[in-house]
Amino acid sequence: MKKLLFQLDTDPIPSAFDIVTAYDAGAHHVVSYAGIAPDQVQGLVHGCIFTRGGEDLRHTAIWIGGRDIAAGEQVLDVVTKSFFGDFRVSVMLDSNGANTTAATAVAQLIRAVDVREGTVVVAAGTGPVGIRTAGLFAREGARVIVTSPLRDQLERASELVKARFGAEIVTRYVENGDVDGYRTLLADARVLFGAGPAGVRLVPETAWQESAGLEAVVDLNLAPPSGIEGVSTGDAGKERAGKRCFGAIGVGHPKMKLHKACIASLFERKDLVLDIAEIYAAARGL
Amino acid sequence: MKKLLFQLDTDPIPSAFDIVTAYDAGAHHVVSYAGIAPDQVQGLVHGCIFTRGGEDLRHTAIWIGGRDIAAGEQVLDVVTKSFFGDFRVSVMLDSNGANTTAATAVAQLIRAVDVREGTVVVAAGTGPVGIRTAGLFAREGARVIVTSPLRDQLERASELVKARFGAEIVTRYVENGDVDGYRTLLADARVLFGAGPAGVRLVPETAWQESAGLEAVVDLNLAPPSGIEGVSTGDAGKERAGKRCFGAIGVGHPKMKLHKACIASLFERKDLVLDIAEIYAAARGL
Amino acid sequence: MKKLLFQLDTDPIPSAFDIVTAYDAGAHHVVSYAGIAPDQVQGLVHGCIFTRGGEDLRHTAIWIGGRDIAAGEQVLDVVTKSFFGDFRVSVMLDSNGANTTAATAVAQLIRAVDVREGTVVVAAGTGPVGIRTAGLFAREGARVIVTSPLRDQLERASELVKARFGAEIVTRYVENGDVDGYRTLLADARVLFGAGPAGVRLVPETAWQESAGLEAVVDLNLAPPSGIEGVSTGDAGKERAGKRCFGAIGVGHPKMKLHKACIASLFERKDLVLDIAEIYAAARGL
Repeated sequence: MKKLLFQLDTDPIPSAFDIVTAYDAGAHHVVSYAGIAPDQVQGLVHGCIFTRGGEDLRHTAIWIGGRDIAAGEQVLDVVTKSFFGDFRVSVMLDSNGANTTAATAVAQLIRAVDVREGTVVVAAGTGPVGIRTAGLFAREGARVIVTSPLRDQLERASELVKARFGAEIVTRYVENGDVDGYRTLLADARVLFGAGPAGVRLVPETAWQESAGLEAVVDLNLAPPSGIEGVSTGDAGKERAGKRCFGAIGVGHPKMKLHKACIASLFERKDLVLDIAEIYAAARGL
Repeated sequence: MKKLLFQLDTDPIPSAFDIVTAYDAGAHHVVSYAGIAPDQVQGLVHGCIFTRGGEDLRHTAIWIGGRDIAAGEQVLDVVTKSFFGDFRVSVMLDSNGANTTAATAVAQLIRAVDVREGTVVVAAGTGPVGIRTAGLFAREGARVIVTSPLRDQLERASELVKARFGAEIVTRYVENGDVDGYRTLLADARVLFGAGPAGVRLVPETAWQESAGLEAVVDLNLAPPSGIEGVSTGDAGKERAGKRCFGAIGVGHPKMKLHKACIASLFERKDLVLDIAEIYAAARGL
Repeated sequence: MKKLLFQLDTDPIPSAFDIVTAYDAGAHHVVSYAGIAPDQVQGLVHGCIFTRGGEDLRHTAIWIGGRDIAAGEQVLDVVTKSFFGDFRVSVMLDSNGANTTAATAVAQLIRAVDVREGTVVVAAGTGPVGIRTAGLFAREGARVIVTSPLRDQLERASELVKARFGAEIVTRYVENGDVDGYRTLLADARVLFGAGPAGVRLVPETAWQESAGLEAVVDLNLAPPSGIEGVSTGDAGKERAGKRCFGAIGVGHPKMKLHKACIASLFERKDLVLDIAEIYAAARGL
């Protein structure tokens, strides 16, 4: 029986990245749907759950992708609500790679640094990756500070982390590139994590390199300039100014491994729902 | 040489149900086209018939689906008209599952009940499944009465059955849920077949359970309430009030088997055109 | 590792012809994108080049098709510009089959006739196939005359051949069906090549059959009447009035072989860019 992966992509064209990765993870056929809106989902799910019986349903799985993770979350919600009783297949949400990226980066950090009761600063952390990163660190026992130059996003970020992870975080308004602002925050932080948009400089070198307690720095920005000055995209634990540094490509390789491992796991059972918590558990196990 | 099934779906997104079933029936690749209109069909058929030579064309086949069977019939018409000489591939029409559902249900009934010269009442039978069911029963020698609460649909149904099956049927205006109307009609019927829309109660229990000559009852409704009160979706010949009963799931399992057998047969020859008559013949042979 | 062919088709629906041919050429999966515009290309290319590493990238390839070759060329331009360093996959352009058709026909002619310093008349040769045919013959050392009944297209054709092939050609205004006009041109020509639109008679029999030096005639028209009167679609070197004749189907079979050979070659390296020059070289080598 063929392993069929139904790709529900909320973008106008389905992600080629996700298709190649799915084949390399062992899917026999990727069936791609683009521009998927919530009202189209139930019929597709019925097509998935009513065609194979019993345990054979583990050979069908659903992947939710696209750039807009809020749209992806709505799709996931309809997918899981369309299941009932034994009529279900495994499903994974990874819109914009946010889940696998956040899970990989935090899992890498946790191995390098003991964050329990330490402070983690997630710079420009009000977007999808930032929210997930903040929540995962908070669940690991860290005191988390999310910064942003957008005042109105800070409260929302705090609420999202609470709703999704049941964890409390602290938020701080900081302008991008504000040396004094970041230096003060980083004075007693153990981890600095840059989760801002591509090509935006968040934290200058002088704001973090002299922080005595800082042990690790992550920057997920692939396009120059880096979000955190001084971190290189290829860094994968490299020591700079005495801190272990991780860049976008350094995180990208294990992210790809996690992505494939998660897809492969979809076909082992028929009842997996892989969102950030489950994907993080998989990242910790790799 | 790969078995390629071209799915021409008239809906905006291609049916996931049909895709899974096609893979499980042995297609090596399903190539899906959605929102197909008749004017797009000839080019697609040319792509199918001009790429492989001679008997190799049996490894390419066309599937026509979607919710709108009238649209599917138009597509089938253009497909077959685009063939010429030896340039042809096998094709099957099963929009909305109407052909495989009607063929399966009638084939089941025929095994359970001798309908020749008996009366079959097809309740709410003016839709695609109803028309096909009525025609198949009439061709098997039954006296067929199609009912509907829609007066203007009755004459059209009669004409469609005549045009498609060359058979005469009787039509009767009956309101949904009309106990007396149905009791009178069912007094000397052998089979009651419910083909109405989902979730609409057509025939109350008291209208059919006391009919002395009635031998079998079919209800294709999956969503409650059942079209024919007292029939359960899982019934597959179960005796209720002395009549053999068949519900949507009871019909659904052999329907799926038929669906797959038909797809598999498409790849055995290059000149099959599977519409209701051929699909019914296959159902009788299973 | 699966051989994945990404089909970027500029038409509203992807070519079924190209899909079947790709599978028969050995692609493991064809991933089809329709209605592709240049601004959607970079993301797709990134999905292709960022998912597999090093030499594994040779298992991913891109095919550009659709009816509009100008649109296809724009897509090819963005595809190749999206590559950098080792991040590249092989790609082929064959919109409307223009490259494989022109390459096949010219390669066939070159085997039958020595065109060096001879004159080749490309009738109605201002379209995609005509431009490519003219350029290939010019590069082979022929004196090429392109005709057209469209005065304003002649200069553009000359410029396109120069830009694309670095070759000079001669252009002549001739009405379709003009016996005297074509007879004069063909008086000292060795090859007559019809590249006009379907169903348009370009050159009457009396204009070419008495030309003493004419050795070969090609007509790519599949729908009657033939562009060059007296040539049959099935001709594959058949002698008519002392000249070797080639028709659309006679060219079509080796064209199909070339098409498949080119696709197969895409998966042998990760850095092939197959446009007319490379496809012609492949045709010469078959």
